[in-house]
Amino acid sequence: MATTNRPIPADASALDAEQLVGLGDMDPESFRAAAHRVVDLMADYIEDIERHAVLPPIAPGTVSGQLPTSPPDDPEALEAILGDYLRLIEPNATAWQHPGFFAYFASTASGPGILGEMLTAALGQNPMLWRTSPAGTELEQVVVDWLRQALGLPAAFDGLLTDTASTSSLIALAAARQAAGLDAAAVGLAGRQDVSALRVYASEEAHSSIEKACMTLGLGRASLVRIPTNDRFELRPDALQAAIATDRAAGRRPIAIVATVGTTSSTSVDPVAAVADIAARGGVWLHVDAAYAGAVAIDPGLRAPFAGWDRADSIIVNPHKWLWTPVDASLLISRRLEVVRDAFSLVPEYLRTVGSDGGGDGAGRNYNEYTPQLGRRMRALKLWIQLRWFGLDGLRRRIRRHLELAEGFAGWVDAEPGWERLAPVPFSTVCFRHVPASMAGDDAALDAHNAAIMDTVNRTGEVFLSHTKLRGRFTIRLAIGNLRTEIRHVERAWELLRAAAEEVEPR
Amino acid sequence: MATTNRPIPADASALDAEQLVGLGDMDPESFRAAAHRVVDLMADYIEDIERHAVLPPIAPGTVSGQLPTSPPDDPEALEAILGDYLRLIEPNATAWQHPGFFAYFASTASGPGILGEMLTAALGQNPMLWRTSPAGTELEQVVVDWLRQALGLPAAFDGLLTDTASTSSLIALAAARQAAGLDAAAVGLAGRQDVSALRVYASEEAHSSIEKACMTLGLGRASLVRIPTNDRFELRPDALQAAIATDRAAGRRPIAIVATVGTTSSTSVDPVAAVADIAARGGVWLHVDAAYAGAVAIDPGLRAPFAGWDRADSIIVNPHKWLWTPVDASLLISRRLEVVRDAFSLVPEYLRTVGSDGGGDGAGRNYNEYTPQLGRRMRALKLWIQLRWFGLDGLRRRIRRHLELAEGFAGWVDAEPGWERLAPVPFSTVCFRHVPASMAGDDAALDAHNAAIMDTVNRTGEVFLSHTKLRGRFTIRLAIGNLRTEIRHVERAWELLRAAAEEVEPR
Repeated sequence: MATTNRPIPADASALDAEQLVGLGDMDPESFRAAAHRVVDLMADYIEDIERHAVLPPIAPGTVSGQLPTSPPDDPEALEAILGDYLRLIEPNATAWQHPGFFAYFASTASGPGILGEMLTAALGQNPMLWRTSPAGTELEQVVVDWLRQALGLPAAFDGLLTDTASTSSLIALAAARQAAGLDAAAVGLAGRQDVSALRVYASEEAHSSIEKACMTLGLGRASLVRIPTNDRFELRPDALQAAIATDRAAGRRPIAIVATVGTTSSTSVDPVAAVADIAARGGVWLHVDAAYAGAVAIDPGLRAPFAGWDRADSIIVNPHKWLWTPVDASLLISRRLEVVRDAFSLVPEYLRTVGSDGGGDGAGRNYNEYTPQLGRRMRALKLWIQLRWFGLDGLRRRIRRHLELAEGFAGWVDAEPGWERLAPVPFSTVCFRHVPASMAGDDAALDAHNAAIMDTVNRTGEVFLSHTKLRGRFTIRLAIGNLRTEIRHVERAWELLRAAAEEVEPR
Repeated sequence: MATTNRPIPADASALDAEQLVGLGDMDPESFRAAAHRVVDLMADYIEDIERHAVLPPIAPGTVSGQLPTSPPDDPEALEAILGDYLRLIEPNATAWQHPGFFAYFASTASGPGILGEMLTAALGQNPMLWRTSPAGTELEQVVVDWLRQALGLPAAFDGLLTDTASTSSLIALAAARQAAGLDAAAVGLAGRQDVSALRVYASEEAHSSIEKACMTLGLGRASLVRIPTNDRFELRPDALQAAIATDRAAGRRPIAIVATVGTTSSTSVDPVAAVADIAARGGVWLHVDAAYAGAVAIDPGLRAPFAGWDRADSIIVNPHKWLWTPVDASLLISRRLEVVRDAFSLVPEYLRTVGSDGGGDGAGRNYNEYTPQLGRRMRALKLWIQLRWFGLDGLRRRIRRHLELAEGFAGWVDAEPGWERLAPVPFSTVCFRHVPASMAGDDAALDAHNAAIMDTVNRTGEVFLSHTKLRGRFTIRLAIGNLRTEIRHVERAWELLRAAAEEVEPR
C-alpha cells in the first residue's frame, strides 16, 4: 500500500514495523488473559466481601505512605501491579459493597451493573453527539423513558443521565435561572442593573448539593432560602408561602423551589402537592429531589409520598443509590427539557455534524447540549442490562424488603428501653440515639455519648453507620440500601449498638 | 443470633430465609461465570475492532426503533441480554477504539485502563470523603502528583481528577471568580451594585467548554472576550493586552485569561509565557487548557510549546484523550488549590466525620470540597494501573510515534498537487482541504466539495474524520491519537481521501 503513496519524508522514514515493538496497546490475547485474571479478583472481592472491614481501620496517609513518590519510567508486570492492588487498595477501600454498609445512602454496584460497566469500558463510547455514539445516545433515550414509566411519570417528562445528583440539580437550577427570563446564559448576572437578587427555596433539611449548585451558578449561598420544617422534618408550605411573599415585597426574585422526597438526614418527605400549588401560583420552577427515595416510586403501591411530583418542572432520582447501579448514574427528567437545552446549548463548528443527523426532523439527540460537560460516559448500558436482568418486579421486591428491614429495626429501637427514635421512618433509614437515664436531658453529654457509640460500632469493621444532627442533636442513622443486606446484618448492627452503649456508658 | 433480639414486630415477621429467594444480588458464582463470558465479548470486540465501521452507517432511530418501548417486569436471561448487546449495541456504537478513528480528538480505552475500570466497578468506591474511600482518595493524591511530575510541573501544583475538561475548566474559572474577591460563592452575582461586569479572555480558537463554563457560572457568554489570533491561530498578546485595557477603562473587571496549548480546531499553541506576563501584571487568574496536547509534556524533549505554563494558576490535561485512559478522566491542577476549595467547600453535618480524619493536621483530603459534585467515581485506579503498565517511557514512545505519523501525513498533503494544508502541525492533528483547479478561489464551492469528500470517506467505515472551520473555510481534520493507529491506517486514510476527491469532483 505504501507504494501508492508519495515517499514518506525523511524525518518520518523510521515508521516501519520494527518500531511497532513497544507501541500500540496491550496485545488482544494478553488483554483477554489479563481480564480473565481480573474477573477472578473482582469475583473474589465480592464473594468475600464480609471478610473486609466496612470502614478500614486506618489513619490518613496509610495508603499514600506505601506508594512510590514518583511514577515509573519503565513498564511493570501486571502481576506486580495486581499484587499491590490486593495488598494496598482492596483492604483500604471503604466497603460500599458490604451488606453492613448502613452509612449515608448505600450505593451498591450490582453484578449485572458491573457487567455493564465492563462492556462500557471496552466500547469506549462518548455519547456527546448522536454521531459519536448512536447506540449510547439512543439507549440513553430508551432507558430514560423506561425509568420514567417505571416511576409512573407522564410522557411529558424527558431527560438524561448525569454523574451525580449534584450535577442533575445544578442543571435543573440552571434551567430555572434560564426560565426566569434573565438570559443568564447569554448575559450573565454580574454588573446588571436589571437583575434583582434571586432566590431559591428549599427546606432546612434539603441536601447540600442544592446549596452548592447555587454557589456554582453564581446565585451564591445567600440565594438559598431555608424554609423551616414541621416536627416530621417536612417543609412547611405556610412558611414557604410567607418567605416568597417577603422576598417579593423586598424586590427579590424567586426563581425555583426545591421539594425533597427523602431528605438526607431523616428521609423526610416534603408535601410536594402543596409545594406544587405554590410554585404554580408564583410561576416558579419546581424541582423535586428524590435522589434516594425516588426508587420507591417504581412500586405503584408505594407512590403516596410522591403525590404531586408529576407537576414538577424537573425531578431527579439516582439509580446509583437505591437501584444498585454502579457509581455514577443520576437521572434528571424534566417536562421542560427545551429550557434545559437553552441553558446549556452551544454548538461550535467542530461539533456540527454533516449528514442525516445534522439537524431538523428525525435528527439524533446531541446530549452535550443539555449538560455543563461536553464529553460524557455511556451510562445507559449498565442500566439497560440491570433493568432487564432484575426486571421491575425484581427491583420492587428488593425495595420492599429494605423497607421491611427498616421497619423491623425501627420497631426494635422503639421497644428497647434507653433508646429513642428521632424521626419517622418513611423509607429505609432509621434515626435514633441512646439515652441512658444518667444523661437524660443533657444534650451535650448525649451527643458525645452517641458519637462514642457510633465510633465504637464502626471500629468493629462489621458495620458502618454515619450520623447527622436533627434539631441540634447528634443522631445515629442506619440507612438500609445495600443490595446484599439481609436481616442478619441488621440484627448484628443492633447487637453491636447495644453492646457499644454498654461499653461506652460510664457506670 | 435472632434470640438475642427482641421479637420482630408482626409486620416484619415475614423476614425469613424463604423470602431471600429472588432478593439480593446475582449470586457470586453466577457473577463470576457471567463476567468471564463478558470478558470474552470485550476481548473479541477489541480484537476484531477493524471489522466494525468506525462511524456506523445508520440513521437516527435505528437503535431505539429496535428496542421495546417499555421496561420488562420479569427478569430476563443474561444470554438474551448479551445477544441483544451484540446485535444492537456493538455495531451501532461509534468505534472510538478503532485505529481509523481520526475525528475530534481520539479517546482510546487502553487494555490496562479497561482492567482498571473493571476493578473500579467491582470496588464501588465513592471517594467524596477520605473516609468513604481512603484508598481512592490517597491513590488520587498519588496519581495526581505522579502526573504533575511527569508533566514537569513544580510541586506547588496539586489537584484532582474530574470527569471532563469541561468540568475542570469550570472549576478553574469558579476559582478565578472566587479569587477576584467578589465572594460569589457566598453572595452570588445577581442584584449587586458592587459588582461590575466580569470578563474572561480566551482566543477565538479556545474550546467551547470555556464559553459553556461562563454560561454555567452566571458570567454569561457575553463575559467571554474572544481575542484574535495570528496567522498560526495563536492568541495575539497585543490584542489581549488591548482588550483588557479597554475593558478596565469601561469599568469591566477582568477575572481570568485562558491560554490554550493545542486548540481543538488546529491544535495551535497560545504564547503561554507572554500571556502569563499579562496575567501577572493584571493580577488575573491564568488558566491553561492543555486537555489534548498536555500529554506531550511528559516528554522533557518536547516541552517547548509549554514554556511558561508553570506560571499558570490552573492547568488541565485530559488523560482520557492522549494518554489512553478510558473515559472519563481529566486532570485539574492548580497552584492555588485553597482557592478552588473556597469556591466549592460546603460541609453539612451528615458529611462531617468523627475520628482521626475529621480535620486538623494529618487529616485526610475530602475531595468533594473541590468540585461542584459531591459524589465521584474512583478515577485514580485505572490511571495508576496504566502508568505502571506502560511506564512513562512507554507513553512517551507512543506519543512520539503519533507525532511522527502526523508529520508524515502532513508531508503527503504538502507534496500532493491539489491539496493544501490550512494550519501548522505542532502536534498530531493535520488540517487540510482539497482544492481542485476548477474551484480555485471559490470558497463556497470548496466548502461543499470538501464536506462531500469527508462524508464519502466516513461512509466507507474504514476511517472517521471530522471537520472544523478555519478563517471561515471548511477544513478536514485528521487527528492522530488512537493507541492502535499504525502507519497503514494513516496511509489508508490518505488513499481514501484522494479517491473521494476524484469521485466527488465534477469532471
